[in-house]
Order: sequence, then C-alpha cells, then structure tokens
Amino acid sequence: MHIKLIFRVLGVLLMLFSLTLMPPVAVSLWFKDYSYPAFLLAFFITFATGLFFWLPFYNIRQDLRTRDGFVITALFWTVLGLFGALPFLFSESPNLSFTDAVFESLSGLTTTGATVITGLDQLPESILYYRQQLQWLGGIGIIVIAVAILPMLGVGGMQLYRTEAPGPNKDSKLTPRITETAKALFLIYLMLTVVCALCYWAAGMTLFDAIGHAYATVAIGGFSTHDASIGYFDSSLIMAICMVFMILSGINFALHFTSWRDRKLRQYWYDPECRFYLKVIAATTVVTVGYLIYTKTYQWQDAFWQGSFELVSILTTTGFGVTDFTIWPAFLPFFLFYTAFMGGCAGSTGGGMKVVRVLLVWKQGVREISRLIHPNAVIAIKLGNRAVSDRVVEAVWGFFAVYVISFAIMFLILLATGLDFITSFSAVGACINNLGPGLGLVAAHYGDIDGVAKWVLCFAMLLGRLEVFTLLVLFTPMFWRR
Amino acid sequence: MHIKLIFRVLGVLLMLFSLTLMPPVAVSLWFKDYSYPAFLLAFFITFATGLFFWLPFYNIRQDLRTRDGFVITALFWTVLGLFGALPFLFSESPNLSFTDAVFESLSGLTTTGATVITGLDQLPESILYYRQQLQWLGGIGIIVIAVAILPMLGVGGMQLYRTEAPGPNKDSKLTPRITETAKALFLIYLMLTVVCALCYWAAGMTLFDAIGHAYATVAIGGFSTHDASIGYFDSSLIMAICMVFMILSGINFALHFTSWRDRKLRQYWYDPECRFYLKVIAATTVVTVGYLIYTKTYQWQDAFWQGSFELVSILTTTGFGVTDFTIWPAFLPFFLFYTAFMGGCAGSTGGGMKVVRVLLVWKQGVREISRLIHPNAVIAIKLGNRAVSDRVVEAVWGFFAVYVISFAIMFLILLATGLDFITSFSAVGACINNLGPGLGLVAAHYGDIDGVAKWVLCFAMLLGRLEVFTLLVLFTPMFWRR
Ligand SMILES: [K+]
Ligand SMILES: [K+]
Repeated sequence: MHIKLIFRVLGVLLMLFSLTLMPPVAVSLWFKDYSYPAFLLAFFITFATGLFFWLPFYNIRQDLRTRDGFVITALFWTVLGLFGALPFLFSESPNLSFTDAVFESLSGLTTTGATVITGLDQLPESILYYRQQLQWLGGIGIIVIAVAILPMLGVGGMQLYRTEAPGPNKDSKLTPRITETAKALFLIYLMLTVVCALCYWAAGMTLFDAIGHAYATVAIGGFSTHDASIGYFDSSLIMAICMVFMILSGINFALHFTSWRDRKLRQYWYDPECRFYLKVIAATTVVTVGYLIYTKTYQWQDAFWQGSFELVSILTTTGFGVTDFTIWPAFLPFFLFYTAFMGGCAGSTGGGMKVVRVLLVWKQGVREISRLIHPNAVIAIKLGNRAVSDRVVEAVWGFFAVYVISFAIMFLILLATGLDFITSFSAVGACINNLGPGLGLVAAHYGDIDGVAKWVLCFAMLLGRLEVFTLLVLFTPMFWRR
Repeated sequence: MHIKLIFRVLGVLLMLFSLTLMPPVAVSLWFKDYSYPAFLLAFFITFATGLFFWLPFYNIRQDLRTRDGFVITALFWTVLGLFGALPFLFSESPNLSFTDAVFESLSGLTTTGATVITGLDQLPESILYYRQQLQWLGGIGIIVIAVAILPMLGVGGMQLYRTEAPGPNKDSKLTPRITETAKALFLIYLMLTVVCALCYWAAGMTLFDAIGHAYATVAIGGFSTHDASIGYFDSSLIMAICMVFMILSGINFALHFTSWRDRKLRQYWYDPECRFYLKVIAATTVVTVGYLIYTKTYQWQDAFWQGSFELVSILTTTGFGVTDFTIWPAFLPFFLFYTAFMGGCAGSTGGGMKVVRVLLVWKQGVREISRLIHPNAVIAIKLGNRAVSDRVVEAVWGFFAVYVISFAIMFLILLATGLDFITSFSAVGACINNLGPGLGLVAAHYGDIDGVAKWVLCFAMLLGRLEVFTLLVLFTPMFWRR
C-alpha cells in the first residue's frame, strides 16, 4: 500500500471537490437566497483538509497499483460523501441532522437519488442546484472508475473490459490509462449533458430546471428540484426527452465513445450488452403498458406515457417519477422494481447488477443445462464473437451470489429496526441498486425512517456503487496483510 | 431416450406404489374408520395403470442412461404425486377438490409438509396414517435419488459425490450402482425410523402417533396427526427426541452409512459439510434463544426449548411446530425462515439449497476476494482435503443463481394472483425449500389461497425437490432433440 500516494490523491480529490462548491455560491448570489455562507464555510474546510493531505506528499511520484485502486475507489465515495454533507449541515434550510445530511450527500454522489427532504419547491435555489450537481459529479466518477479502474481490479467479472494492451503497463499500473480514458469519457458526458439541458430548455423548462434535470438525467440520479419530480412539468415532450436521455445514459460510455468516434451508429446494435438492454426495455415496456391497459388503470394513451416512462425510469435506476407507480395493480410495482436489479450497462451511470452480468448469468444458466444434457461437450460462453473466460464466468456468478446475500442480510437488519416487510425489502433494493425511490413507507422519501436504518441504507448505496466486492475486500484482514 | 424402458420403470414404480396403499386399508379396518374403500379403489387404479405400462415391456433389458435418469427422476414425483392424490379424492373425509388433493399428495411426497387440511384431529386414522406414510416414502426416494442418481446426472455440482469407480460403468450406466446403494440406504433409513418411533412411544406417544411422527421426522416432512403438531404432546422429552432425529435426518445418509459401517463416530466431525451444518445449527440457535431472552419474549427455560426446537425444525426444513414462531419479535421469523434456504445436507431428506452448496458458495466468495487481492495466484477450493473442480464450482454458482431467479419469478406470479407480500414471499420460500409452513396467510395451512397459487406452489415444491435443474432441463427443446 502506498499510504503517502493515497493521501496525495485524496488531497487532490478534496481540493478539486472544494472547487465544485463555488458554482452553488454563484447560484446563491444570483437568486439572492442567502445560503452562500454554508457553501463558503464548506469550501474552506474541504479545501484546507485537502491541502493538509496533499502538501506533505505533493512531490510523491509513484504508480498506483491494484491494491491502492481499491482504497482510492472506496475513499472517493466515502470521503467525498462526508465532505459533501457539509453544506447540508451548515445551511439553515433544509435543517438536516448529521445522519440526514450524510444520507442526502451519499445518495447524491452515488446517484441513488433517495432523499430525506420534503418541500423541495420551498428550498433555496443554491441547495437545489447543489443536490443536482452532486449527482452529476458522482456520475462522471462512476463512469471513469467503471471504465478505467474496475477492469484493472477485476471486480465482478469486469476484467472483461480490460483492453489487452501489451507491455509493462498491462498489469497493475493504472495511472496512464486513467488520465487518457477519463478525458474522452468526460467529453462525452459533458456533451450529453449540454444537449439534454438544451432540449429540456427548448421544451419549456426554466434554464435552472433544465440544467438541474440534465445533471440528474445523465447521471441516472433522479434528484429533482420539485417534489412532483418530472410530473411537475406535465409535458409529454419533456417526458420523451427524459426517456431518451435516460436510455442513452444507461449505455456503456466506452461504447458511446467508439460509436461516435467511428461515426457508426450500428455499433450500438452490434454490441451484445447494448442490444440485450434495448430488447429488455422493449419487452418490459410492452408488459407494463399492456397490463395497464388490460386492467383499465389508464386510457391507452396515458397507459403508454405513464407506463413507459416509469418503466424506463426504474429499469435504468434513475428514479424520476410522473405518477405513483407503487399503487398500480397487483404485481406491476414489483415487476418494475425487479427490473432495477438489472439496471444499466456496465460503464454507464446506471445502477443495479448491470446488463452484461444478467446476460452472462442467463447464458451460463443455459450452459449449465446444456452441460447436463451433453456432459462431455466443451461449451464456450460467447459475447458477440468473443469467448468469455471461465475466470470471468466465475467472477460474475460470485458477484450475483454476494449481491443477493448482501441484499438478504441488510433486509433482515432493516426488519430488525422495526420497519415493515415491504418497506425494508424495497428500501434495501432501491439503495443497493442505486435506484432511489422504494415502495411502502419509502415510496416518496426516506425522511420518516429510523437513524440506524438510514446508516444501513448508506452502506447499501456504497455497496451497490462500489460493485460490492470493492467495498467488501476492504473488510478482509487479507487485504491489509503485507 | 429409451421410451420403452421408461414405461417399464414407470410401470414397476406404480405397481410398487399401489402396494403402499394396503397398510392404510389395514389401519382403516383396525380403527374401523370406514375409509378403506377409497384406498382399495386407488389401489386398483394405480396397480392397473402400472400393469398397463409394464406388461408390454416387461422383458426389456437396457441400461438406463443419463437422459433417462432425468425423465425418471421427474416422473417419480409427478406421476406418484398424481396417483397419490387418489385416496384424498375418493375419501369422504376430508372432502378435497382435485387441486387440493394433488397439492396435499405432492406436499407429502416431496416432504414439504404444507397442508390444505385443517381439523386433522377429526380425520379418519387411515387418512392420517396415509399422509405420514407418503412423506416417509418420499423421503427414501429423495435419498436414493440424491445419493445414487443426481451425482451421475451432475445436477447443481452434485458430481462432487460421484464415486470414482473405474471401468465402463462409470459414465452413463446407472443401474448397477442404484440397486446396490439403494439397499444400504434403505436399511439405515428404516433403522432410524424404527429407533425414532420406539423413542416417541417410550416418551408417551400412542403407538399410532409414534409411528406417524417417526415417518414425518426421519423424512424431514413435518406432517402431523394433530393440528397443534408436536406442540400437542406438550412434552420436553418428545421435543428433545424430535430435535435429535431431525438433526440426524438432515445429515447425508451416505455419511451415516460409512460412519456406521466403520464404527467411527468422528467421521461425522471430519466431514466438512456435516461439521459446517452442526456449527450453523449451534450458532443460529444461540442467536434465536438469545434474542428471545433479550426481548423477554419467554423465560429463559421456555426460550431455550421453544427457540431451539423451532430453529432446528425450520433450519432442517422439517416444519414441525410447538408454538407460533411467526409472531416472534422483529426479524426473528425471517431469520428462522432464511435458515431454511440452507436446509439439510446433500443426500439427506432435508430441503433448501443444501449445506454443501452454501458452504461452497461461501468458500468461493472468499476466493473471489482473494483473487482480487492476488490476481495472479492460483487458489483451489477445498472440501476437507479434496480440491473441488472448477466444473463443480460453476455448477454450484449456477444452481444458486437459478434457484434465486426461480424464487423471484414465482414470488411475482403469486403477487399477481392477489396474495399479499409476506404470504407470497414466504409461501414460495416454504415450498421451494420443501419446508412447509410459511408466514402470513400460510403460517398454519394453505387452505385459504387461490387455486392458481396452489398449482404454482406445487411447481415450486417439485422444483426444490428436483434440485431445480432436473426439472428445468425437461422444458428445454435441447433435451428432446435427438
Ligand atoms: K438513481
Ligand atoms: K418439510
């Protein structure tokens, strides 16, 4: 472990993060909402802490190695989550406890979008802006980590995306690849956000709402500046724009990069993960809309808009709402909720277990059955034309098992805090999948639940965002042994 | 596929099964409950059908091959389940519909022990005896299939238990091994039942109750001749006897065989699966009893007896009851319910995913983490001193994933039939784990739920009992292709 190097990286991260507290100050001054002192105070504390970590080690030059990668990835969300909570703590409106402030901040940064705040429409603009921006920052962090770091670490089968670069850089040195990849991805992310914001603006949102919702859409975050979420705007055009950008943001950003660079749109369809993702969206939309019409819950036009919007929002794990889908008939709320366990593609801002893993689990299930019938056949699992190694196969099964078991344990703990069955089940699901809204007591917000439950859910959000293993590995004595 | 051979085996099975309808006739005549015509009629139909399948092919001499093994294993429970329902259909008391009769029969044969009948204490003795005997017959079927057939088929990693016998018999010819193994196992099963019955009798049960409960205990079935189950006897001695035999019956019968043959009790402790099983029972008992004392639900003595009995009964998936554990505080009902997902050891009469699979999933989870930290290390998974092959590892992950996904889908279907969340969740869990009692509406019995739900649950019981893959494989076109 390169402790000094980790301190230096952490220092840089905190100083960079402190700079992101300046735009809310500007927003506050522009709207005259008098909340800027909270941001300035948070800025000074964060910047000073960053400087404190960075200064003694500013001239350290070492390459990051695998083990450091785990620590930095985990620190990215935990430390930034804590410092990101400062403005909520210092601000008078909303008046949040320490637990609530950390919950809101982590929920933003992990792009979960579960909120403890009600009465959004009455909040200072700077706080509203800050929440949206937190998601946007979390979003780019996720993409860079998912595309540049996790493949190197080999978390949950993500070595699948490891580029076979020859030479000494291949194995454990991460630095060169990170910088180069991060730039390309950031550019795409920025472009997508700008286009999304312009579309929203053109469709009738105020510029403030347009930027804020573009942040939360592209980050698959789901925070809104209104309690009624996207439903506030009551516009099919805005719903359509939102759906398009949620679906786009749920696609692997490395795929966006190559498709746009090569100007070949059909690459989206040739990519097995993306194709499966689009097919699942189409199929589940048909089920949802069909069942809404069949049960006469809505007229067919409403059924189409409400059904497809909610489905896309839940499946991609965005968590925007236009209606209360939790009161839809029979199995529909759970059906939608299940789709969030799949979530977006690997390397996107989406949560859940990721499309490629679900696809691999499916293919492996089929292979297990084939093996029973033909015990001596050698059957390879393929993604497109590429055979997937057994090592990846095992890692994906492992991911699935540990994901389900973590879910089951946290569900039990939430029950132990006294929450009811549906609330516990869905709160853990909504947080581990980085979805946001749940069912039951947490359908609208998380303000009414117990403090212990909130901390468990914070852990769930981190677990989901850190692809389970990145976090769990830090709790093993083995990791810390030299 | 050897259709003729399968017909012959099916014919023999049905004729043998028809003979098991004679003891209830004797019971009926002894107790003068006037129910014997139902059994006689069922006997004639079953025997005639068996003869009809057997007669044309009685001189067929072929070796069973892998593919036939799947069909016969699946037919064992489905066909016997259907014919086993005949006495319930023909009997006037209880007056069951076709759905209920099949549900009760399948629930007995798969040793699930979920019942649709209330008022057991008023039923004819012959029917009560028949229910218990169904479980006992199912129990021996499970053991023989699990020890002799599943390892050959390689279902869910069970090739782990394949004895490395050299020569041409090794691969796909099942017949010689089945006969020889079945005899040894049956003897142990019989011995265990006789000893259990004698203990119950000595402890104060009537001979009728002692035999009936010994059947259901050794089969890990959980049917009782009283609505109050084991609680009816209100005796700590009977509870203690029951616990001992539930724990014994949850152990691999092949292990019983070798330990008793070699007169070496410590083999139980040297067996990694058995040791893990005993440790988990000890640990979960401490949690259960401790929490009951901590919450002052019972005095410490009651807490010990009720807590440990219910825990052992649920964990081994027996489903006997002495109290209503579903009203215990907070997370305890779900905690107990979770343990049933582990269930008994492979090759026992227990349900659930089986101890060895949980142990392997755990070891593989640890290995995945080690691999993250030491990406280039070659790490073998060991059970005792034996390294477990990657093929088995993958099959176990596969089993786990398909088990969880099947659970999730059937849960959704039960919600769609209009059942509430807890009932749907626990009914599917109780049936796929072959546990029996659930929570919510199905805590005591399954009489009040809808017909469609009952058929889904029948499927769940079969799925659990057939180790998921044995049943699923039959639904693939691949299996039926020549
Ligand atoms: K979200
Ligand atoms: K049972």
